[in-house]
Amino acid sequence: MEKPYVFGIDMGGTGTKFGIVDARGNVLKSFSIPTPQYPDIEEYCDVLCTEMKRMAEEFGGMDQVRGVGAGTPNGNYYTGNIEYAPNLPWKGVVPFAKMISERMGVPCRITNDANAAAMGEMTYGAARGMKNFIEITLGTGVGSGIVVDGKVLYGHDGFAGELGHTKIVRGPEARQCGCGAKGCLEAYASATGVARSAKEIVSNSSKETSLRQLDIDRITSYDVFKAAEAGDEVAKEIFDFTGRLLGEKLADFIAFSAPEAIIFFGGLTKSGHWIMDPIEQTMNECVLPIWKNKVKVLVSTLKDSDAAILGASSLVWDVEALSPMKS
Amino acid sequence: MEKPYVFGIDMGGTGTKFGIVDARGNVLKSFSIPTPQYPDIEEYCDVLCTEMKRMAEEFGGMDQVRGVGAGTPNGNYYTGNIEYAPNLPWKGVVPFAKMISERMGVPCRITNDANAAAMGEMTYGAARGMKNFIEITLGTGVGSGIVVDGKVLYGHDGFAGELGHTKIVRGPEARQCGCGAKGCLEAYASATGVARSAKEIVSNSSKETSLRQLDIDRITSYDVFKAAEAGDEVAKEIFDFTGRLLGEKLADFIAFSAPEAIIFFGGLTKSGHWIMDPIEQTMNECVLPIWKNKVKVLVSTLKDSDAAILGASSLVWDVEALSPMKS
Repeated sequence: MEKPYVFGIDMGGTGTKFGIVDARGNVLKSFSIPTPQYPDIEEYCDVLCTEMKRMAEEFGGMDQVRGVGAGTPNGNYYTGNIEYAPNLPWKGVVPFAKMISERMGVPCRITNDANAAAMGEMTYGAARGMKNFIEITLGTGVGSGIVVDGKVLYGHDGFAGELGHTKIVRGPEARQCGCGAKGCLEAYASATGVARSAKEIVSNSSKETSLRQLDIDRITSYDVFKAAEAGDEVAKEIFDFTGRLLGEKLADFIAFSAPEAIIFFGGLTKSGHWIMDPIEQTMNECVLPIWKNKVKVLVSTLKDSDAAILGASSLVWDVEALSPMKS
Repeated sequence: MEKPYVFGIDMGGTGTKFGIVDARGNVLKSFSIPTPQYPDIEEYCDVLCTEMKRMAEEFGGMDQVRGVGAGTPNGNYYTGNIEYAPNLPWKGVVPFAKMISERMGVPCRITNDANAAAMGEMTYGAARGMKNFIEITLGTGVGSGIVVDGKVLYGHDGFAGELGHTKIVRGPEARQCGCGAKGCLEAYASATGVARSAKEIVSNSSKETSLRQLDIDRITSYDVFKAAEAGDEVAKEIFDFTGRLLGEKLADFIAFSAPEAIIFFGGLTKSGHWIMDPIEQTMNECVLPIWKNKVKVLVSTLKDSDAAILGASSLVWDVEALSPMKS
């Protein structure tokens, strides 16, 4: 009989969540440890694996566990390494998959966060049954997982799908992005980007807006959402600006991989139609006639709290992807 | 024994070239017919197939022919149809692969011109041994064939890889493109785009340039090349402008599919380092640090005269792609 469980790990700069998952996508139990508390990667792996084994005991022990999947910052699917992740305590190249696999005695596969979300979406979410789609994660940054013919696109080196760092604004007024370049989509369409837009738009206009009552340097995308819901025109304008930039860029993405759908995941999607409507409208204005009103724009149906764990776990359910490790 | 020959068809708006090809990529014999002379698609297919059968007789007859591959404007690999091709005499949807296959008694596969070039590059050209690359065709338009994991990326509907219609200039000054939208790469980086840039740059400056002696409305990219070779600074500036726009856009493409190489094919590549140097330099300025100086920028090694026939023929050598038609 196939082993019935897998572990999914969602590694972030502040915390590492992990859980044991069954084949139907139920996170049966989850737990978390604070990432920065373990500056020594060996100790981090020891603690993480001790906790996972303890959890496994409640479900019949490691004999019942098929493998471990992890979504990590800068995780490389091909090598199993975490490579030069700026927001993690461990510098350089960390052979994470190997370290976990050795400790757990089962295969471990890793990928980056957005690819994990795409895998989760395909296995358990809005992309079930789809073979060609793009998952865009709108959070602190803008990530993406591109699925082609039912497989995540990794490219020559394992780093494909960095759509947050394609350019949406050119010229001297382009915003500085955290990656070092200017004008990246991430500098506009992330939660942070929306906050920057709010600051710019509020500062550069004299229009009446409830946002002016807030500390302009601490406005969040959630503040803008609340204002839009209350009828604030400037707040609506901020989402419209963001959505239009995203929509323009989606047209480029469609010309690349002709997906069936583009699926949005992450905090900013909670702004609902305020951002989704201008995205979809602008996308359809900008695509080639063959794609007008044909590409679905969807919001993820993955539960926020479990999505990253589920996505990571689905790396292990994928039999084809695991087969090279069976030998 | 495997049948030793295939036919490759290169269908264009003005002429249709076709040839018989062996497994080593030798075009053993080729011929052409004038496309617009056959407003009736049935008659066109009759003439084309009669000529191909006649050619096959010289090589042992149709028993020696494995199949027919065709690169056609708006050719859809999934359906085998030519769909709404603006520059062909036949309107609407033409079931071209079926029509050829019925007449020839062997399978026929079609794709668009740029995908055929990518297939040819992978089978016989600069991309031999590569599994992830992007072929960009710089001709009257800008086409592209994207190869992922050794296969052409077709996407959900068969139309993936329209990189000529991604946006490179935004805002009111963006050039009108033939597709109906504004600011497309094709409006700047095609041979026609270079001629438009020449007209703009010459008209908007008072710099001395040999290009001013030519009829400004009839300047070609080849005129600009000759002037650059002769040391004309304005001509160099035109290629620099074009190459920089292309290089910026390549950085976006790399963020998408992380290719091992980007390979240029077509007339404009004959402008050599005048255009290739600014392309490569700007690309490396704009990509994420992980890709700086890592992605090869190459010029096709396919012979111009045979490239499209070879590319189309390689659709048939691809055993995996043909298997669904064997039944």
